[in-house]
Amino acid sequence: MQAKHPKESRTTLTDLVLPSETNPLNNLFGGELLARMDRAASIAARRHSRRIVVTASVNHVAFNKAIPLGSVVTVEAAVSRAFKSSMEIFIDVWVEDRESGNRSKANEAIYTFVAVDETGAPVGVPPLEPETELEKQRYDAALRRKQLSLVLAGKMKPNEATELKALFKD
Amino acid sequence: MQAKHPKESRTTLTDLVLPSETNPLNNLFGGELLARMDRAASIAARRHSRRIVVTASVNHVAFNKAIPLGSVVTVEAAVSRAFKSSMEIFIDVWVEDRESGNRSKANEAIYTFVAVDETGAPVGVPPLEPETELEKQRYDAALRRKQLSLVLAGKMKPNEATELKALFKD
Amino acid sequence: MQAKHPKESRTTLTDLVLPSETNPLNNLFGGELLARMDRAASIAARRHSRRIVVTASVNHVAFNKAIPLGSVVTVEAAVSRAFKSSMEIFIDVWVEDRESGNRSKANEAIYTFVAVDETGAPVGVPPLEPETELEKQRYDAALRRKQLSLVLAGKMKPNEATELKALFKD
Amino acid sequence: MQAKHPKESRTTLTDLVLPSETNPLNNLFGGELLARMDRAASIAARRHSRRIVVTASVNHVAFNKAIPLGSVVTVEAAVSRAFKSSMEIFIDVWVEDRESGNRSKANEAIYTFVAVDETGAPVGVPPLEPETELEKQRYDAALRRKQLSLVLAGKMKPNEATELKALFKD
Amino acid sequence: MQAKHPKESRTTLTDLVLPSETNPLNNLFGGELLARMDRAASIAARRHSRRIVVTASVNHVAFNKAIPLGSVVTVEAAVSRAFKSSMEIFIDVWVEDRESGNRSKANEAIYTFVAVDETGAPVGVPPLEPETELEKQRYDAALRRKQLSLVLAGKMKPNEATELKALFKD
Amino acid sequence: MQAKHPKESRTTLTDLVLPSETNPLNNLFGGELLARMDRAASIAARRHSRRIVVTASVNHVAFNKAIPLGSVVTVEAAVSRAFKSSMEIFIDVWVEDRESGNRSKANEAIYTFVAVDETGAPVGVPPLEPETELEKQRYDAALRRKQLSLVLAGKMKPNEATELKALFKD
Repeated sequence: MQAKHPKESRTTLTDLVLPSETNPLNNLFGGELLARMDRAASIAARRHSRRIVVTASVNHVAFNKAIPLGSVVTVEAAVSRAFKSSMEIFIDVWVEDRESGNRSKANEAIYTFVAVDETGAPVGVPPLEPETELEKQRYDAALRRKQLSLVLAGKMKPNEATELKALFKD
Repeated sequence: MQAKHPKESRTTLTDLVLPSETNPLNNLFGGELLARMDRAASIAARRHSRRIVVTASVNHVAFNKAIPLGSVVTVEAAVSRAFKSSMEIFIDVWVEDRESGNRSKANEAIYTFVAVDETGAPVGVPPLEPETELEKQRYDAALRRKQLSLVLAGKMKPNEATELKALFKD
Repeated sequence: MQAKHPKESRTTLTDLVLPSETNPLNNLFGGELLARMDRAASIAARRHSRRIVVTASVNHVAFNKAIPLGSVVTVEAAVSRAFKSSMEIFIDVWVEDRESGNRSKANEAIYTFVAVDETGAPVGVPPLEPETELEKQRYDAALRRKQLSLVLAGKMKPNEATELKALFKD
Repeated sequence: MQAKHPKESRTTLTDLVLPSETNPLNNLFGGELLARMDRAASIAARRHSRRIVVTASVNHVAFNKAIPLGSVVTVEAAVSRAFKSSMEIFIDVWVEDRESGNRSKANEAIYTFVAVDETGAPVGVPPLEPETELEKQRYDAALRRKQLSLVLAGKMKPNEATELKALFKD
Repeated sequence: MQAKHPKESRTTLTDLVLPSETNPLNNLFGGELLARMDRAASIAARRHSRRIVVTASVNHVAFNKAIPLGSVVTVEAAVSRAFKSSMEIFIDVWVEDRESGNRSKANEAIYTFVAVDETGAPVGVPPLEPETELEKQRYDAALRRKQLSLVLAGKMKPNEATELKALFKD
Repeated sequence: MQAKHPKESRTTLTDLVLPSETNPLNNLFGGELLARMDRAASIAARRHSRRIVVTASVNHVAFNKAIPLGSVVTVEAAVSRAFKSSMEIFIDVWVEDRESGNRSKANEAIYTFVAVDETGAPVGVPPLEPETELEKQRYDAALRRKQLSLVLAGKMKPNEATELKALFKD
């Protein structure tokens, strides 16, 4: 399969924070943002693979910034690395200030999706070829994250995770 | 106020058609698409004016194409012309085919929003300066639509609607 | 097919404005009202035709009045004219004042639905026979609106739209 | 306060059964129908009292008939008897057959609402004066239901419930 | 079939009161609580019968206590008596005070479900064997409620309702 | 502050998979499960701290098992370790088989919440004292997870993460 670029799967979901999505403090529920990112990421995975895709995992997500009711939130998702049948999706979340028009980073998240056929069996996906500097950084880091994920799931021995070992060496 | 370009308000809302938004034929409800377009258009109006905005009207919308459950739908909205305190927003709706990756036009719609202050009184908005050929066509047509809207609302006499009269002259 | 009267399709949907349907100013979203009107209109079209019906278009809708959270809103829809397989539905929206009990007009809208068979092919619908003065006015105006719609869609030449030409003649 | 007639509070909520309201058998959830009836009944209570109203109780409701996805359901609610500050609301639920246009009874339910002021304290409501035969029957039965409700809540001794005692005398 | 104990069907649904479930006074809608109890009760009925279950009726429900937005609400449902193919489910609703951690009773309700096969025909369910004192009280009262329900539905003559007659004897 | 036990914050949310929460394959959306877990976890954090709590982060979550429409899903959340003002919540997700009544593990997830005062400033929370063997294991692992989280966020140098270094030593 021919390699694809991140821009071919880039997905933008700009929407308001609606009253039914807020907690009693009138900020967007963490759980609702996770759901919205899941939808954007699934579209990016589908655009890269042109297959049915299912959520395989969500990496660590930090919620550093409250997002108030009525905000304009932009979720941007793109494939950051493709493996055999799985794809890592990197998601950036931005919030806009109405008066200045400035947008600031509210969150980052990383989801993994798997492409499957109609019976649910994994199928191959095209490789990803990063273009920009940021895309290349994310592409490289994706391998470390995959190893970490395998180690945490008990599917790889820590001392075989060469990328990670380097990180914790003193 | 300094003029702005359509690209400064362009808003992209790509999302799935969810089961709770479909009719018994498993296609997106016309009413749900109208609601989704309203949200995207309100964000575009807000980006242009940096003000609170409220829906003033919806022009004629035709639903030519059924959009099935699970589709990826992209709603793109941008200001097409700014008047004193109102803005016309032109909306294009695209549906993607999962296997080929092709996207086809599903709908067009035109909403009008008004910028208001905290008391609900109309406030001025920056003028719009179209750049591309398509933006210029839509900018010109907006005046005819405004006249038509005024005539239909009984706020302008048909024979004063110079743009429209030209259209119906034989 | 035997003609039917508007009262045979008249549909009343009285409901509260719920918190999940309001914008940050605590008024009913324009988009939500469009969705609610679509449901009422589709029931009216179904009552007239006794067929599956799909939204074909929405005519110009003006939002002149904010509808606050907790309001009682009545949407009344009835077929205003039937063509070969399409039906124009006229919708009146009323809001009630709790203390006085008075109800005032909040909106009007016109939707067009098409009756289809199981394969989605258009099927014939009964003619409409208006009874009251208001029903007759709306019936007559429906033809002008249909011509306008055809002209705007490029399916009728302006100078063939006899009803409209009369309107813009000086 | 001047007496009112049931027709002054009659509330009609005709709507579709939407996919998000159905159980895995594709029929309307009992719980969703209860919620829809609660909204219609609260509007009837508000129309009678012109006050804020809160649900006080729901009498016995039987679900005799499954209501499938896509059905047109009409909920009709009207005050059936007014007490000092509480109102009994009688609710009829109808389902329509698309092809024949016949509508059949799907459910009946009885809710009680209390009118309150801004602090939540009960306030008086106008008496109800039934007009039709059916309205009179429901008005009479309401007293028996109120006694039964008081007995079941331990607020009235069974042998003081004169209306009920008559019922169980042999 | 072997008898089961109430604890085998006990179902706990602890959740927040979300903004989309509140009325304009910011308290949980009576109708939404009815829907939430219906879901918990249907799970209890399914755990007892291991069959498809449908709501047959809701007994008298009193709403004595407003439940504000953001509350933690616990709905506990368990089978209180099993008949041939129907099951009575007793539901307790608790609200927690955030600061003290105390929980207080907000509601009680009784729903009846019927176990059915794939064609919708009623099927037998295991008997229930109460264990605690409270379970025994509810088990005994269930028979009186069933007679009352049959009398109100006109399916049993009042003077055959031996349990009820005893109650109203003076 | 006096230490608390995990059982004091244990929160059970048993509910059905509703049609509006499923993807086109009729399985629960990954994103919806994340939202449901967020609500259960926030209640556990609130029970432990008796404070307002906000989601701070979500650890790695793997979706190993599709959860079909109509399933009974039990989300169990309890505090697994308390730090100064943050709490780690461990979440177990179970799915029940209707016919056999067996329940099997569908997911595990770990969320972190922070207790705050009305101004949003972090406040102290009671320490946690694990009791069972499983609670002790999760308590110990929580420290490693916290270090990992600090390393990934760039707030701790890898070679200071003593717990983690031990893991990757060969």
